Amino acid sequence: MSSYKRTSSPFLKIAKKFNCFYINGLPKRHCKPFVVEGHQVGLVRPDIMVELLRYPEVFIVRPDSVELNPAFRDFDERTARVEQVLQECRANNTFVTLKGWRNECYNVHSVLTDPPLLRMDRSATCLFGIRNYGVTINGFVHDATRGLCLWLQRRSPTKETWPGKWDNMVSGGLSVGYGVIETAIKEAQEEAGIPETMLKDIRPSGAVSFFFESERGLFPNTEYVFDLKLPCEFIPKNNDGEVETFDLLSINELKEIIASPDFKTTSSPIVIDFLVRHGVISPETGGLGSLQEPNYAQLLELLHVPLQSIYHRAPPSENGDKVL
Amino acid sequence: MSSYKRTSSPFLKIAKKFNCFYINGLPKRHCKPFVVEGHQVGLVRPDIMVELLRYPEVFIVRPDSVELNPAFRDFDERTARVEQVLQECRANNTFVTLKGWRNECYNVHSVLTDPPLLRMDRSATCLFGIRNYGVTINGFVHDATRGLCLWLQRRSPTKETWPGKWDNMVSGGLSVGYGVIETAIKEAQEEAGIPETMLKDIRPSGAVSFFFESERGLFPNTEYVFDLKLPCEFIPKNNDGEVETFDLLSINELKEIIASPDFKTTSSPIVIDFLVRHGVISPETGGLGSLQEPNYAQLLELLHVPLQSIYHRAPPSENGDKVL
Repeated sequence: MSSYKRTSSPFLKIAKKFNCFYINGLPKRHCKPFVVEGHQVGLVRPDIMVELLRYPEVFIVRPDSVELNPAFRDFDERTARVEQVLQECRANNTFVTLKGWRNECYNVHSVLTDPPLLRMDRSATCLFGIRNYGVTINGFVHDATRGLCLWLQRRSPTKETWPGKWDNMVSGGLSVGYGVIETAIKEAQEEAGIPETMLKDIRPSGAVSFFFESERGLFPNTEYVFDLKLPCEFIPKNNDGEVETFDLLSINELKEIIASPDFKTTSSPIVIDFLVRHGVISPETGGLGSLQEPNYAQLLELLHVPLQSIYHRAPPSENGDKVL
Repeated sequence: MSSYKRTSSPFLKIAKKFNCFYINGLPKRHCKPFVVEGHQVGLVRPDIMVELLRYPEVFIVRPDSVELNPAFRDFDERTARVEQVLQECRANNTFVTLKGWRNECYNVHSVLTDPPLLRMDRSATCLFGIRNYGVTINGFVHDATRGLCLWLQRRSPTKETWPGKWDNMVSGGLSVGYGVIETAIKEAQEEAGIPETMLKDIRPSGAVSFFFESERGLFPNTEYVFDLKLPCEFIPKNNDGEVETFDLLSINELKEIIASPDFKTTSSPIVIDFLVRHGVISPETGGLGSLQEPNYAQLLELLHVPLQSIYHRAPPSENGDKVL
């Protein structure tokens, strides 16, 4: 017999944190779609819009959208004209996020499977709410005494974003020119020194989507998730200077760490998804799974928020009522 | 280097079928929230509303909602008054779905973890777009020659809904009085004769949510998913007369069958989720996974549509623009 007493929702609480914009910002903020060549590719907050108004030859702010000037002829012209504005903003310290200029670009797509419309420095995409795509590898071990364990990294204290925080073993953004699996393999080698012989066992295991907001901007993130069962004796070894240490955590250790402020908020959904898929988190107690989340179905929805629907909204119906 | 040529999306195509209401109906149909005791518990289509207008002492049709008369005092009175209307509709053949009256009730909740507000026959919940919760067990085998294989059932040709169709090995709705894990175990014994010794290995593996529509009504479904690795020699045996046969299918056989009209549409998301979690479906070709879905991230979103957000919509913002 199911009972209806209120129990705590440890993972739902975290899911609301990494979805702070989906839960609180999206229904309340008056953001406008960012439109390039007739496609919505982003979402612009009012505070960002105010700054973009200073560049009317590049950004056309309309009642219901912010449009990149449709007179720009192609990928190269769009990229150059936006870059020019961003460099000026960077020089003027207009946006905090541009202090972390990366000199590494993300492509801006309508849909990932379509050709890109322009490219933009990684640090700038959050200003326009451009969708980010990344890749994460969960390196795990079945330890004879500790049971299921997951490798995590501590980010280098010199990293521009989330310095010193706990993070997934291997992850990376889908940069210009790299495919999903290619990125996974490249990052596994650079970030954790995983040899090719072990990498043949990485297994595509799903994708998580969530919508986070920070002082830097908007983060509609989609992570392609891979699982990799590692030999017990293997120890990851960083090769690019971005990792402080690697640690192998048991389920009990993970449970403590993931809810702490020492964990990179936008990496926690991947760990929670891993714990769900491996049967660790359960909808009810009763022998199955060791951690309970009473709002299990809601948690699963918040690991896969409808970014596709948010960015490809149906036109308003006749009475102007947007249902989606 | 990723390429942008259009490739076919076999699984996305199926996901749009079991989400036909989420994709096409929800943005376009003028449905109204069904409200009980101040909580939205359902969604009512205009064609159903027309019939409910004949019972103004039970259903109050307002400009922006259909409300169950708030004068009803408690669970029992709400249940009895709705039942009375449904029995009259059933006698008058008002709704096709009521021909399949089940004499088995679903609880109607605001949230599953809260006490129920009323109960209603299973055949009637689709008229009000009440959320359904169910449980599915994926029984799978690692066959030495055929590789990963999944047990499926053929539904009995005498079943009221989806007669003779391919279906998951074990599934059942969360009926009044049963918990999630309890339902899984009960159904596994009744539907597939799985002995208790094997059942101790069932593993909670997530939940899928989707929003289907048929001539019978609206189906906002959430399925709690369990995986169960079975011994190669075990053969499921039905004990309740609802199953015609069980068959063990290889990945290649599954791939053919799942896209066919012989597969119960509302059971296919659970199979697709299984194939994603077991690394069979991959975002790209390249050695990993045997089946490719180029719109992988979108597929994952459509296996977990935001029923929670749809049923607990934030109030419209000041300018009347509903973003979610």
